[in-house]
Amino acid sequence: MSKPSDLAGGTKPRPSAAIIADLKHRLAEIYDLNAASSVLTWDEATYMPAGGAAARGRQVAILRRLAHERLTDPALGRLLDRLEQSAGNLSADDANLLRVTRRDFEKAIRVPAEYVARANAHASASYNAWCRARPANDFAAIVPFLEKTLELSREYASFFAPFDHIAAPMIDDADEGVTTATIRLIFTELRHALVPMVRAISEQPSAADAWLDRPFDEEAQLGFGLKIAAQMGYDLERGRLDKTRHPFCTKFASGDVRITTRVRENDIRDALFSTLHEAGHAMYEQGVNAAYEGTPLGSGVSSGVHESQSRLWENVVARSRPFWEHYYPTLQQLFADQLGAVPLDMFYRAINKVEPSLIRTDADEVTYNLHIMLRFDLEVGLLEGRLRVVDLPEAWRAGMEADLGIAPPDDRDGCLQDVHWYAGNIGGAFQSYTIGNILSAQFFAAATKAHPEIPTEIANGQFGTLHSWLTDNLYGPGRALKPDEIVARSTGSPMTMAPYLAYLRKKYGELYQLPAS
Amino acid sequence: MSKPSDLAGGTKPRPSAAIIADLKHRLAEIYDLNAASSVLTWDEATYMPAGGAAARGRQVAILRRLAHERLTDPALGRLLDRLEQSAGNLSADDANLLRVTRRDFEKAIRVPAEYVARANAHASASYNAWCRARPANDFAAIVPFLEKTLELSREYASFFAPFDHIAAPMIDDADEGVTTATIRLIFTELRHALVPMVRAISEQPSAADAWLDRPFDEEAQLGFGLKIAAQMGYDLERGRLDKTRHPFCTKFASGDVRITTRVRENDIRDALFSTLHEAGHAMYEQGVNAAYEGTPLGSGVSSGVHESQSRLWENVVARSRPFWEHYYPTLQQLFADQLGAVPLDMFYRAINKVEPSLIRTDADEVTYNLHIMLRFDLEVGLLEGRLRVVDLPEAWRAGMEADLGIAPPDDRDGCLQDVHWYAGNIGGAFQSYTIGNILSAQFFAAATKAHPEIPTEIANGQFGTLHSWLTDNLYGPGRALKPDEIVARSTGSPMTMAPYLAYLRKKYGELYQLPAS
Repeated sequence: MSKPSDLAGGTKPRPSAAIIADLKHRLAEIYDLNAASSVLTWDEATYMPAGGAAARGRQVAILRRLAHERLTDPALGRLLDRLEQSAGNLSADDANLLRVTRRDFEKAIRVPAEYVARANAHASASYNAWCRARPANDFAAIVPFLEKTLELSREYASFFAPFDHIAAPMIDDADEGVTTATIRLIFTELRHALVPMVRAISEQPSAADAWLDRPFDEEAQLGFGLKIAAQMGYDLERGRLDKTRHPFCTKFASGDVRITTRVRENDIRDALFSTLHEAGHAMYEQGVNAAYEGTPLGSGVSSGVHESQSRLWENVVARSRPFWEHYYPTLQQLFADQLGAVPLDMFYRAINKVEPSLIRTDADEVTYNLHIMLRFDLEVGLLEGRLRVVDLPEAWRAGMEADLGIAPPDDRDGCLQDVHWYAGNIGGAFQSYTIGNILSAQFFAAATKAHPEIPTEIANGQFGTLHSWLTDNLYGPGRALKPDEIVARSTGSPMTMAPYLAYLRKKYGELYQLPAS
Repeated sequence: MSKPSDLAGGTKPRPSAAIIADLKHRLAEIYDLNAASSVLTWDEATYMPAGGAAARGRQVAILRRLAHERLTDPALGRLLDRLEQSAGNLSADDANLLRVTRRDFEKAIRVPAEYVARANAHASASYNAWCRARPANDFAAIVPFLEKTLELSREYASFFAPFDHIAAPMIDDADEGVTTATIRLIFTELRHALVPMVRAISEQPSAADAWLDRPFDEEAQLGFGLKIAAQMGYDLERGRLDKTRHPFCTKFASGDVRITTRVRENDIRDALFSTLHEAGHAMYEQGVNAAYEGTPLGSGVSSGVHESQSRLWENVVARSRPFWEHYYPTLQQLFADQLGAVPLDMFYRAINKVEPSLIRTDADEVTYNLHIMLRFDLEVGLLEGRLRVVDLPEAWRAGMEADLGIAPPDDRDGCLQDVHWYAGNIGGAFQSYTIGNILSAQFFAAATKAHPEIPTEIANGQFGTLHSWLTDNLYGPGRALKPDEIVARSTGSPMTMAPYLAYLRKKYGELYQLPAS
């Protein structure tokens, strides 16, 4: 370890320099072990032959265990204690490193290793049971697993007692600083705005999109999406795109941030928007200050802010009309047989078709949040003990009926559809999607206010100004700022629904000729 | 850890069962850490974007260090001591496990960690210097690096003193039980047979192969090679083929053994025979008794025996006339434009063309060993202090002239051509290639003696009998038998040159109408 740079200009000696060096050395090992484990899971999802599965489980498990042992090492805690005693001497970056490492350390040591092993074993058994139960539409078979998961989730929360609400510890893991009360407040407001909007749209003629159900060459689909991602700012010298069953983004280093997508031959929207969604996540991770690599500062700040970037690029940018004014002629050339005779407006309406549907992952921008809110309400109900696991299917149907006016004919497309509850905790995962949607519009509005030329640039296939603004305000800081600081500094206000509602009302008001509200 | 199976039928209690369980647990961790590191290097060679390189170096380094720490843990040594005290009680498999683990442990602990770090740092610097020196044909620039490598290689040997010969420790690492004296003996005999054979062939008209210099579709090339590999017995449920700059085979588990190849658009031989060569290595690893997974018994037994399997499948099988009687019509159909009018004999001669050439990796079956022997002689000369590094280029030219009748016009295609000396030890790597060639014929002759129908089966594209014989005799045992035991048990004699010389004389005698010798 050479002399930390923050010493160079200092006038008084900093006794903490050696401690910082020791800390960074330990953190880099944890970072690299976690990165190695991510390479293994990426490989598992992309190229691993079926025969490799059993050994891969073992390999990932040992790497995770070694990383966890290092993160919970009491010696690491003693380093943090000593740094806190001389906190006044620390540079801003080192102070941030101390704060974030303390947060991660405290979270890790509160959860006993014995619990982690027990919860992991159950999650794996539950996931396997779900893989059988969902296709069989057999909710009864999963009930004992889900009851146990609920028990484990409550036990997990108890490690962080006292708390304001039993869901708080799980929500705080994903979205630091966000409270259950805040989410309930914004979800209530959002539901009041969205339910009538969906109802009004449902009364309009549905956007035609059956003409899109034609085969599109897979390689051409992938190439088109990746080319746009690169033009947006996804650096392919430090990334790549592969195919997987479920799209994801994964980071091994600031120089290696990969995305995956799936391709449906007969629905060109799936690969394209999945690619751009994951590219949004990837641009965020690629944009984090490279000096933070190897430390907990070197990643995106929260699930909600992360999701805001996937949604911003996928929806606010790539489902906008200016965007397609530029790209549609290229797409038409590429797929002349399928799209040559389809006018831009017809295509634009098809990629923004709003329709109440059963499956969250297929939902459009307007109805999507209603799916999220339903799940959030139900998991809070479960955690609070107001809802019993056996009553979940009926509560699901009632919620769908109330918000979307439709109900699933079976549990397969109802409460069995998402993997989240069946392979991990109950609580803490779903709110981030809607926080991401809300923030995507808030960030975009702030960027456009600072640089009114952004929409015109998008209509010319140029994304440099937007990408730079996001890098300066969101991506660069990594975890050096807290989520609420990121939001406040870059948009001038705390998280607020107004820009998101304005965005939806304007866009879908025009698309569906809704009365101004 | 559940009860080891060898206890089940026993009558007297084995106090060592708990020690064996502890040992296997430690060994499985080492195995999995090494496997994880292999996944990372496979990814580096196949799909990693350029930006990932720096972090990848760190990630691999920590995994290797953790594996090495565990292998050299004194507690592991104490377990071995205790098992040796009650060795009479051990099952055959456990006794073999003890013997092989002891070998690996002793090798690892004799080399100080300080040396490993110093040698790795130098190897890396030397490799970088070589990457510049070779294209620049600048041997002088690499001399100081190579002198240091020689010094380090002698130091490495010193950790294993006393030894019969200074090259012995390095040779023993790769080929247990093979002595420098043995290699000198067989190399002398082989040189006496090969030099006149090459000379006689050089006096014949050269096999025409310029007509092969045409473009062949890359995907079709890859698909053809992989299909044959699968028919030979390479299990694609437990393996896969990817493209890399240099072909290799790598194992992550018995269920995940991958190969890579390179493709030259204008030389169909390159991808095809590289694929089958690596498939030979892979079938060996896939064939090791799955019960040995996670222990040092679970891999091929030595470099020479490993190379015998790549050579057997690549050369003895896939460059034989019966093989192409079956596959050539398929190849002609696949590449009708290029091969439709080319008769089988012309193709068969082209894939077995013998011609003295400068580059080892492009050499044919007959001249190949002369390249190896030159390198072996030179590295022994360097290690013994008879040859100075600065005199290497001249010694190389003299050796080439004497054995092959040609000499390189520059060092780029002379003593700078192979990476081995420039990125690791001097000594221990090259002999395995020729041992592999010799053994490939010895094993094939034994298999054919036991099952005379094998050549006929090959002429029908059937490889089951050969593959089963190899699995029973070579692959299955992994490292449970020593290399010389494998050879003796399966062929009825120690390593011997006779089958290899008979093979070359028959095949190339027919191809080039040589007088019977």
